[in-house]
Amino acid sequence: MEIKEDVRTLRDYFEQEDWAGLRDYFEAQRVQDIAALLSELGDSEELVEIFRQLDSEQRPQVFSYLSPADQAGLLEALSNQEARFLLANILPDDLTALLERLPRDTVEQTLKLLSADTVKQVIRLLGYPEESAGRLMTPHFVSVQPDWSMGAALEHIREQSEKGETVNIIFITDAGGRLLDAVKLKRFILAPPAERVETLLTDQVISVPAWEDREEVVRAMQHYDLEAMPVVDNHNVLLGIVTVDDVMDVAQEETTEDFQKMGGVGVLNLSLRDARPSLLYRKRVGWLVLLVFVNIFSGAAIAHFEATIEAVIALVFFLPMLVASAGNAGAQASTLMVRALATGDVTAADWLRLWGKELAVSGALGITMGFAVSMIGLWRAGPEVGIVVALAMLCVVVMGSMLGMLLPIVLARFKLDPATASAPLVTTVADIFGILIYFSIATAILTVPPVPG
Amino acid sequence: MEIKEDVRTLRDYFEQEDWAGLRDYFEAQRVQDIAALLSELGDSEELVEIFRQLDSEQRPQVFSYLSPADQAGLLEALSNQEARFLLANILPDDLTALLERLPRDTVEQTLKLLSADTVKQVIRLLGYPEESAGRLMTPHFVSVQPDWSMGAALEHIREQSEKGETVNIIFITDAGGRLLDAVKLKRFILAPPAERVETLLTDQVISVPAWEDREEVVRAMQHYDLEAMPVVDNHNVLLGIVTVDDVMDVAQEETTEDFQKMGGVGVLNLSLRDARPSLLYRKRVGWLVLLVFVNIFSGAAIAHFEATIEAVIALVFFLPMLVASAGNAGAQASTLMVRALATGDVTAADWLRLWGKELAVSGALGITMGFAVSMIGLWRAGPEVGIVVALAMLCVVVMGSMLGMLLPIVLARFKLDPATASAPLVTTVADIFGILIYFSIATAILTVPPVPG
Repeated sequence: MEIKEDVRTLRDYFEQEDWAGLRDYFEAQRVQDIAALLSELGDSEELVEIFRQLDSEQRPQVFSYLSPADQAGLLEALSNQEARFLLANILPDDLTALLERLPRDTVEQTLKLLSADTVKQVIRLLGYPEESAGRLMTPHFVSVQPDWSMGAALEHIREQSEKGETVNIIFITDAGGRLLDAVKLKRFILAPPAERVETLLTDQVISVPAWEDREEVVRAMQHYDLEAMPVVDNHNVLLGIVTVDDVMDVAQEETTEDFQKMGGVGVLNLSLRDARPSLLYRKRVGWLVLLVFVNIFSGAAIAHFEATIEAVIALVFFLPMLVASAGNAGAQASTLMVRALATGDVTAADWLRLWGKELAVSGALGITMGFAVSMIGLWRAGPEVGIVVALAMLCVVVMGSMLGMLLPIVLARFKLDPATASAPLVTTVADIFGILIYFSIATAILTVPPVPG
Repeated sequence: MEIKEDVRTLRDYFEQEDWAGLRDYFEAQRVQDIAALLSELGDSEELVEIFRQLDSEQRPQVFSYLSPADQAGLLEALSNQEARFLLANILPDDLTALLERLPRDTVEQTLKLLSADTVKQVIRLLGYPEESAGRLMTPHFVSVQPDWSMGAALEHIREQSEKGETVNIIFITDAGGRLLDAVKLKRFILAPPAERVETLLTDQVISVPAWEDREEVVRAMQHYDLEAMPVVDNHNVLLGIVTVDDVMDVAQEETTEDFQKMGGVGVLNLSLRDARPSLLYRKRVGWLVLLVFVNIFSGAAIAHFEATIEAVIALVFFLPMLVASAGNAGAQASTLMVRALATGDVTAADWLRLWGKELAVSGALGITMGFAVSMIGLWRAGPEVGIVVALAMLCVVVMGSMLGMLLPIVLARFKLDPATASAPLVTTVADIFGILIYFSIATAILTVPPVPG
């Protein structure tokens, strides 16, 4: 609600061409809020004109928080000089992220606007695998050497800090740039100025190689409560750092990917708001059509038991209930499993323990639900059908649960993403087995001519 | 794999009673890793003996990273003196978290071991609503006043820092403790020592009231890239700070809750590893049994159309396929929606725009799938059934998608948790409507005596 009012205020300034008023308005705002406001505008001409009113300090910062689509639009609409200023003033990791997401032709134009040094740096960063620590890191950090005095180190930190570097964590490296330790700024402030830096060294530094998967970086930073994770090459030379704000964004993106996979949707890599219907269609149609064809098997299973169904038509009444229960139990089990694997709560190596636990839980669930459904069966179709549906319910709930639990583990064992064991997939496969189990039990028990109540 | 080897190493030291070796081993380890190792032990006697070998600095830190079950076990097994030392040395926010999660009788024993001041503090923190900023904050922070000189401020920061306070962010408050600004430590280091602190003031400080929901705190810290969020009372007096490592833990917990709700499981509040089968049973049985009873309606719907089914038995063949497609489309739409609402990507106010988009997407999906299924229908049961299943597929996919999209929005509008619109719930409701739509269309079109191919 609030943001809509702010957008109206912005539009008023724009329509009345009250640029001074607009600048005053911006001055009181945080860059993140300005970016959120600009994203609401939609119209790109308006966006460009309003963006131009930002002062030179805010402009690169606001730009970094815009969506890739808005960033590409702005880069095209601004003059080369304006674009060059912008690109020279955004952080290296933001620049890499920008170039990663821009359309190919815009990338080439953009590279022309960068200094030769920056191009070299960007190309090096983009050389690391997608979703790796190298792509995520910023090469700007402050490092000192062990043989320096604390006073000299602090002087160096002060100089770097004036250049805008992050200095909460100071890195200690040897003359060859190899990482020795990561130490909090306050340790330098507290130490006697004449003491040497090496007195601060511990042997507990944590670092990741540049090609490490970014999910691993998130996990390690969370596990060790780190503010900044040093990234090194294979000679342990410090290349850059990943900061905690980047990691929070990554954690959120990775979780959204897991959600989308679990829901049987392809990974959007874009907000639901910005996604065009055609993209959403493409990301959803694959699983849906695939599962339609998988469901031919459930149709075939039903056709196979036509004789049993025609003999006891009451069996159809319980079909949706049994099939849905198998799917629901499976969805529960797979959701718990996928999330536990994602947070590192369990690993594929725990399968034996989890397998036993799931058997106990699903057995108890099956007995409860079998009892509930036997009452309905007894009431609607007499004792024999009651026994059939109760027994079938127990079996399908255990089957669905085991399927939901095992599928993500099997995927994880083969180094595939466990989240591919989506709720729709587990539900559909559980459906087919559910139909087979139900009618097999019915056919076996009801060979005695049934006496419907 | 690795951790299992470490556990074996630990057990070897224990069995050989090689306490000196164990202490050396611990010295080289990070507290988080030691905690992870101890959690693997299981046997509480072993745990207590091994825990006692930690040095007095590591002990409270390792304790903070243990699971609530292990913490309770330790507190009971240790002597009062040992427990008192432990509790006096853990951070106030960790202490609150501990007391929140301990069994009630252990809480009372634990309170007896705390100093009167600490008890007062803990009671105040526990007075804030569950899952609020107040519960999450630590009351330890460093604040300076605007009329101080930078030199005096730095001296004060240095003193506080020696006491172990976090000092990356320094808070500027007036004489009444009211929050004026939050400033990075490096700004104090860079400023001339004689200048007054007030020259650092901006009017852009962000804070949250103590009763604010912790999910809001996470969102704001992520939006503004904050390292520490100041928490204030309703007179704007600074009460404490929430740090970014707490927020990462909260973000992960909240996401796990969303996953569990989406999977139709009650919130575990415990890791899947540690959860006993009886707890898992209780958290899962509710939805499963409820959905069985909801499915009585799908049975009733089938019974209602018995005449149509008996006339064209081939219709049963397509039943699982259509019903599953309705559920799958619904699960996709609700997953996208629940996650977008959770990340703040969309809000309930966007419903109109989203409604139109979902209609377009699901219409296109329905046409594609209707076409696919009409081919199967034509092949298996002739043109008339082909038309029926194609039309039914279009309708059920649109219906399922709209249901999946609207249910989370409606829940959000009524301030309920959108994640309650779980995949199993949406699937089951979509099933019932799917059956009704399918057989209604079949009854309407197939009144002409059907000519199965």
